[in-house]
Amino acid sequence: MTTRCIFCEIASGRQPARVVHQDDLVTAFWDIHPQARVHILVIPNQHVTSLREAEEVDAALLGRCLQVAARVAREAGIAESGYRVLTNVGPDAGQSVYHLHFHVLGGNRLRLALG
Amino acid sequence: MTTRCIFCEIASGRQPARVVHQDDLVTAFWDIHPQARVHILVIPNQHVTSLREAEEVDAALLGRCLQVAARVAREAGIAESGYRVLTNVGPDAGQSVYHLHFHVLGGNRLRLALG
Repeated sequence: MTTRCIFCEIASGRQPARVVHQDDLVTAFWDIHPQARVHILVIPNQHVTSLREAEEVDAALLGRCLQVAARVAREAGIAESGYRVLTNVGPDAGQSVYHLHFHVLGGNRLRLALG
Repeated sequence: MTTRCIFCEIASGRQPARVVHQDDLVTAFWDIHPQARVHILVIPNQHVTSLREAEEVDAALLGRCLQVAARVAREAGIAESGYRVLTNVGPDAGQSVYHLHFHVLGGNRLRLALG
């Protein structure tokens, strides 16, 4: 990375965050603007711009992000009540930070409209 | 599976669907009740109930689902305009079919509210 990426800085510990999980591949931390009672972000530590680059990224790393999403949901107590995991790509989805991140949302009923 | 699973039947070809991708691990097909101009579902061919079981599933299989999501989005022409990929787990998220599936939504502006 030549330009500053806030999520690279969180993954490397240069930027503080409410981290709930970190291993050599993946970091998970609370969203600073939660949209549900539980709202955690899961990111690969390595810089990936978005899921659009998924075919150039190791499938096991992408899958590891989803495993960590399920794990932090369980640890947050929402495995049984339910949750949503999503990633936004590009302008139509309102992607805000251009470092791949998966939102884990739960702790209350989520809206049924997906689009 | 001892009980009938509609997505197992689609993956095995016993149930018709508008399939846009299939390989030995993953099947992708149009949602019959689209919530965006493009609304494709990506499923593992093997039965996995939801992402809650992610830690018991091969990370590479989960990642392959995401790679296929990016691929079908590209093939549907929404890679640049943007799209959302999400999976619902359990009652709070309104999970409707209990076979892991990733929604790929795009082709128009999506709502910003995630929860």
